Amino acid sequence: MPLILETIVTTLSPEGALHLVPFGLIREGEDTILAPFRPSPTILNLDANPFFCASSPRDVRVIAGAVTGRRDWPVVACDKIPGRRLADSFGHAEFAVEAVEADETRPRYRGRTVHAAAHAPFIGYNRAQAAVLEAAILSTRLHMLPADKVLAEMRYLAIAISKTAGSREREAWGWIEDKVAAALNRDARSLA
Amino acid sequence: MPLILETIVTTLSPEGALHLVPFGLIREGEDTILAPFRPSPTILNLDANPFFCASSPRDVRVIAGAVTGRRDWPVVACDKIPGRRLADSFGHAEFAVEAVEADETRPRYRGRTVHAAAHAPFIGYNRAQAAVLEAAILSTRLHMLPADKVLAEMRYLAIAISKTAGSREREAWGWIEDKVAAALNRDARSLA
Repeated sequence: MPLILETIVTTLSPEGALHLVPFGLIREGEDTILAPFRPSPTILNLDANPFFCASSPRDVRVIAGAVTGRRDWPVVACDKIPGRRLADSFGHAEFAVEAVEADETRPRYRGRTVHAAAHAPFIGYNRAQAAVLEAAILSTRLHMLPADKVLAEMRYLAIAISKTAGSREREAWGWIEDKVAAALNRDARSLA
Repeated sequence: MPLILETIVTTLSPEGALHLVPFGLIREGEDTILAPFRPSPTILNLDANPFFCASSPRDVRVIAGAVTGRRDWPVVACDKIPGRRLADSFGHAEFAVEAVEADETRPRYRGRTVHAAAHAPFIGYNRAQAAVLEAAILSTRLHMLPADKVLAEMRYLAIAISKTAGSREREAWGWIEDKVAAALNRDARSLA
């Protein structure tokens, strides 16, 4: 299996509107594959404008926000492709689509790196940020999972939050807790 | 609670020998606190040479290696302090110790950032790298935890490995699996 990088992917619609969404990008050698499930605005955008940008958010509220209806984060223009990137990122990369593998469910857009840049030194890993990412993914699968499994995972992930989160990670965690609690019809405080 | 950053901390002994160890650094406003438990070579080193460097490894085998007896990773000279940093890092920061809060168990060294630099664009998060980090920490606590709890956590973390790891993450995971299996007196294959 190849390495999967969880990033914030941005594309432009035919009208030039920004679409910002978390994606797991697939690294295959020098190439980077973006493989959205149909239907997806990203697919419509790539077919019209075959470029995409990947940014790593410094603030994991961007990831938690994307799965809880908060997608309005500051962006700036890309350097080498038509597009925009997350403004507050450790780094970003810009890709041109070189090939498309058609598929009824999940077409694969093969991206060649046109440009990559660092914007802030990434000094270390934060366990709470990783826990927010896991919980964000979990929160998109609530309809497929039994409640006790969801609650067990949330309890496990909450340990890293309690031990290593700063204020932004704590707020991001709260957004996802609220979403999970609402889906399971519980009080958010009962998740802890 | 403040943000904790998991980094590779390097210090120099009074004789100039490198000591490389994973540490969770505590962010307090502009300061960064290094708080090792006694006894620790890092404490002896900081008392002789009050500087430390933090690097984020691009290769999580550095983290898995540090808890499984593999600490010989390439380093290069720091830019502004006497010391060395991990060569293959997304970024590093150099700190001067400005104050020490004495403590019988866990003295706190308050570091002021002297210099920080990015060396490679950090484009996205990898769930397998986070799982290796969690398993590495878990593997230092095996004597305090019941075997069934350890096995349950390893099984949970293995999901991210199977879905998102590249070859380096897979090798790092294998080192920790072997350590956990040996401690629990089991065949490593029985952990999966």
